[in-house]
Amino acid sequence: MAEKGTISIHTENIFPIIKKFLYSDHEIFLRELVSNAVDASQKIKQLASLGEYSGELGDLTVEVSFDEKKKTITISDNGIGMTEEEIKKYINQIAFSGATEFVEKYKDKADNQQIIGHFGLGFYSAFMVAKKVEINTLSHQEGAESAKWICTGETDFEIKKGTRKKRGTDIILHIADDSEEFLNEHRLQGILDKYSKFLPIPIKFGQKEEQVEDGKDKDDKPKYKTVKKDNIINDTDPIWTKSPSELKDQDYLDFYKTLYPFSDDPLFWIHLNVDYPFNLTGVLYFPKLKKDFDLQKNKIQLYSRQVFITDEVKDIVPEFLQLLHGVIDSPDIPLNVSRSYLQSDSNVKKINGYITKKVADKLAELFKNDRKGYEEKWEDIGVFVKYGMISEEKFDEKAKDLALVKNMDGKHFTIEEYKKHIEANQTNKDKNVVALYTTNKDKQHGYIDTAKKRSYDVIELTGPIDPHFINHLEQKHEKFQLQRVDADVIDKLIDKDEKKESVLSEKEQESLKEVFEKAINNKNNSVAVQPMATDDMPVTITLPEFMRRMKDMQATGGGPMMFGDMPMTLSVAVNANHAMTKKILEADTDDAKQKLAKQAYDLALLSQGMLEGKDLTDFVNRSVELSLA
Amino acid sequence: MAEKGTISIHTENIFPIIKKFLYSDHEIFLRELVSNAVDASQKIKQLASLGEYSGELGDLTVEVSFDEKKKTITISDNGIGMTEEEIKKYINQIAFSGATEFVEKYKDKADNQQIIGHFGLGFYSAFMVAKKVEINTLSHQEGAESAKWICTGETDFEIKKGTRKKRGTDIILHIADDSEEFLNEHRLQGILDKYSKFLPIPIKFGQKEEQVEDGKDKDDKPKYKTVKKDNIINDTDPIWTKSPSELKDQDYLDFYKTLYPFSDDPLFWIHLNVDYPFNLTGVLYFPKLKKDFDLQKNKIQLYSRQVFITDEVKDIVPEFLQLLHGVIDSPDIPLNVSRSYLQSDSNVKKINGYITKKVADKLAELFKNDRKGYEEKWEDIGVFVKYGMISEEKFDEKAKDLALVKNMDGKHFTIEEYKKHIEANQTNKDKNVVALYTTNKDKQHGYIDTAKKRSYDVIELTGPIDPHFINHLEQKHEKFQLQRVDADVIDKLIDKDEKKESVLSEKEQESLKEVFEKAINNKNNSVAVQPMATDDMPVTITLPEFMRRMKDMQATGGGPMMFGDMPMTLSVAVNANHAMTKKILEADTDDAKQKLAKQAYDLALLSQGMLEGKDLTDFVNRSVELSLA
Repeated sequence: MAEKGTISIHTENIFPIIKKFLYSDHEIFLRELVSNAVDASQKIKQLASLGEYSGELGDLTVEVSFDEKKKTITISDNGIGMTEEEIKKYINQIAFSGATEFVEKYKDKADNQQIIGHFGLGFYSAFMVAKKVEINTLSHQEGAESAKWICTGETDFEIKKGTRKKRGTDIILHIADDSEEFLNEHRLQGILDKYSKFLPIPIKFGQKEEQVEDGKDKDDKPKYKTVKKDNIINDTDPIWTKSPSELKDQDYLDFYKTLYPFSDDPLFWIHLNVDYPFNLTGVLYFPKLKKDFDLQKNKIQLYSRQVFITDEVKDIVPEFLQLLHGVIDSPDIPLNVSRSYLQSDSNVKKINGYITKKVADKLAELFKNDRKGYEEKWEDIGVFVKYGMISEEKFDEKAKDLALVKNMDGKHFTIEEYKKHIEANQTNKDKNVVALYTTNKDKQHGYIDTAKKRSYDVIELTGPIDPHFINHLEQKHEKFQLQRVDADVIDKLIDKDEKKESVLSEKEQESLKEVFEKAINNKNNSVAVQPMATDDMPVTITLPEFMRRMKDMQATGGGPMMFGDMPMTLSVAVNANHAMTKKILEADTDDAKQKLAKQAYDLALLSQGMLEGKDLTDFVNRSVELSLA
Repeated sequence: MAEKGTISIHTENIFPIIKKFLYSDHEIFLRELVSNAVDASQKIKQLASLGEYSGELGDLTVEVSFDEKKKTITISDNGIGMTEEEIKKYINQIAFSGATEFVEKYKDKADNQQIIGHFGLGFYSAFMVAKKVEINTLSHQEGAESAKWICTGETDFEIKKGTRKKRGTDIILHIADDSEEFLNEHRLQGILDKYSKFLPIPIKFGQKEEQVEDGKDKDDKPKYKTVKKDNIINDTDPIWTKSPSELKDQDYLDFYKTLYPFSDDPLFWIHLNVDYPFNLTGVLYFPKLKKDFDLQKNKIQLYSRQVFITDEVKDIVPEFLQLLHGVIDSPDIPLNVSRSYLQSDSNVKKINGYITKKVADKLAELFKNDRKGYEEKWEDIGVFVKYGMISEEKFDEKAKDLALVKNMDGKHFTIEEYKKHIEANQTNKDKNVVALYTTNKDKQHGYIDTAKKRSYDVIELTGPIDPHFINHLEQKHEKFQLQRVDADVIDKLIDKDEKKESVLSEKEQESLKEVFEKAINNKNNSVAVQPMATDDMPVTITLPEFMRRMKDMQATGGGPMMFGDMPMTLSVAVNANHAMTKKILEADTDDAKQKLAKQAYDLALLSQGMLEGKDLTDFVNRSVELSLA
């Protein structure tokens, strides 16, 4: 019973499948047909340059038009054209890609990278939107006759004499009832703008009106008339196809505006150009990111030989690089395959590595050649650099000396520079260099003030990524700690083991603690009476660094899960050496003691921005009364 | 030259296209093959029930297994099987869907909804991951012989005598080098869990170990032994296939846990079941939403005849319903087609309308039958109801009497009830009923206190959706306004046109205004001296409702764009009748006047939570000094 054979395909079943499976987005039909038209035009140029076509090339503009009444969309090119035999060979046999054979034939002769038509089934995407498709074509070959092919979306076709007088091809789509949305100028313009904006052959879509000067009127003022001009929708030579040496800064800025019309100018850019071991060109821009980097709308656009493919590059470009803007063009990125496959694809890995390196090199160059300019841009690029350092070990290696911190005087330092800057005054008893930071210079103003009194330096780390960045720094640098200015009382924040004398006896301290515990009446707060400077605050409320940082990390995603729901413990430090605490101890009645302690505690809460609700209203009313006394 | 013909497909070109285009996610091959196996098993059951198969049905469990060394994955069923002729007919001719013919043949005889294999090309998805595919099968037909089909991913196949002794089919995939990721227990288990968890025929994947009691040890304690059991990965009768009358609450809760193992119990649920004009079953759950509804992770899962299709339902279910959890099973939702098409698909529209109505009905039923329970759930369902009312006119019509507001005493009202509740005391001179709300009862405590002194009611509207909801209410209800408690001084918040006498002359008021303007020294603040109650605050800072609300709306997305960057104007109302303002006017020196005015202004800023930075530090230091005086 053994038998061998060949699998066959029932063609009558393939059309519904093409319609259903080929592309989930039906608008792709226009990308495919316009790309085919461009392809045919590129081919005739190539044949001419090889001496295999000796006729006039003429105007190679591809034209897209539509007729709302006839319900047709037409794509016309002046390209290579087809003979009847070629139609039979290339069109009647689905998935026989003409481009494949062409590239095969001429593979050693010319730059085949220009041939787009590697999509194979592209032409048949016409049937996603059309109930009838006509091809009217005249081959470039000498003596060729025009041929017309008609197919109604069943598998029967008809070939007859065509009517085309000039070399090239018209594809006429008779749009199906469920696809009439495409018989609309704005819809078509939108699709062309999306996919075909940078194709290498001019694409004309209708006309546009322009005002031009037309002599003077009787008052000698210029008159204008309306002139209709061809509406060419594409830029055939986008900057990424050119050599950087041909381009000025303004060219890059102009191109950025073309991509993202409503955006601020980018800070700087990188021109990508590599032939081996993969093929990739492109321009990546560093945008002004500010802090709302989550609300990223301008995405990197991925092209394959100047045809737009997608702006969902999340499986192709490392996450931190997705904060960049711009264009990547590569025929070597596999399309339409599974994510897990993409992530393990060796070309994709190499592309990732290449882009990461180029970005780090660009930053290093800016840092080295223009430190001042680099510092000015830090606010915008900082998020990006920090994100890269945290998430990509290889980027961290290159960028670790490029990360800056800014102190309250507005001065920038690299991490190594900053450690040197503070080590004399900010090394603790365990020989750790302790950097102090604020996440909000307004809300933590009182604490910053106190640190300044000790001549301590304070840096600003205010972004949502900073809790993660702080952790990263502590992991990478030995004997280096970071503490928020309100993480402890000033003497413990950088603990130099300098003992302060207390003016209060131990018994007095104990009694003071009881007064405060009663006045505060909150079990989550831990009260400690300790000797501090007489000009420190009477009461200081601090938030332990570790717990607070873990909660901050969790709030922005990441970080261990268990801290979110734990109550935040407040440390209440009562200054044993302050005049007010003395006054509290000496007050006549318990009630008077409580009142004063409560006032001191409320003022500490106020400094920490934690006095709210009824407590705040009471405090304000009490203060109004006091001011009337 | 006219000629007619039939389009043909070059089969040698179709395999690369299947691999590239069929599904972007290669793991789908397992969904397809397991669904085919289930299909074959359903068919034999169906034939038996029609009396067309008289043999034993036996165990119909489908088995999935893999061999890491041989690099194979095998899917075996005890279903209908195939003869050599059937292989030639159904397998060798791509896109000839066996199911289509079967359904056609038996269409009037049985419940054809059970036949899954409507994917057509399903079997060929095997070639996305396999370099060689074998079919070893024995038909259910009497006297049938086993047949084996082998294909190496080229288009040549071989058929020979098979080795299968029992009715059914084995599909053996020889996995390609680039797909070895699938030769992994966890990977396969994961794919089966995702797509096949609720298929109607048991699916076995390997074995699992279980501990069972095995007599007693010498101390009479139970002994345990490890027993291997078949690992059945699916629930063949998920609750959505059953009738609600068969089900208890606990069944719904258990099923919820199966879908979302780490989630809190849902609040309630809706069992969907409709046959006409479309076919749809499912269970939708109302989760505990709280306020972080943006961080939604549990998604509605879409099935087609118990096969998981996707959890991206955004083009199928109205946006606000996507906050729900659960399962929808419908063979009538078109898969893999473009978004714009889906949105205009009439079945999808009807399904939307049906679900929206069912959800509104369920809410109305709860509200009517258990008002107290409904109120208790309001915190969780409120976001959902409000979102629905704002975004879907049809839902708003049904739900407008189901939306609640909660006042500071914790009492709930419908909008109409609330209007009645407040209209006696809170109608202004223009006959508008004015509702007062707070977005944060701690931060706006002082203002709420002031409103309470007038016996005004205050409701809480604290969610990010509430600024939009407030706008919606004002548009839908005539003569109804909402004002945040700090939108104006209390007499203007609900302006009853009651004139208050000022104890200050106009000249004194003018002079007071100058003192404050100088003390405040901020052009964005507008200072007005006005007669207020003597027990109102000396200074009140208010944020005009309209501007503030527009900014709030913009912060959560939506709302007009132009307000975001405009500076917020503070209205500073100085109480002409307060003892403190009198004291300011009577102070000896300009300096003393300024100091007192500044203190009154700082206290007003404190009440509004706006005293920060150096101003706050200065205020705290000043207060410490005062307390020592």
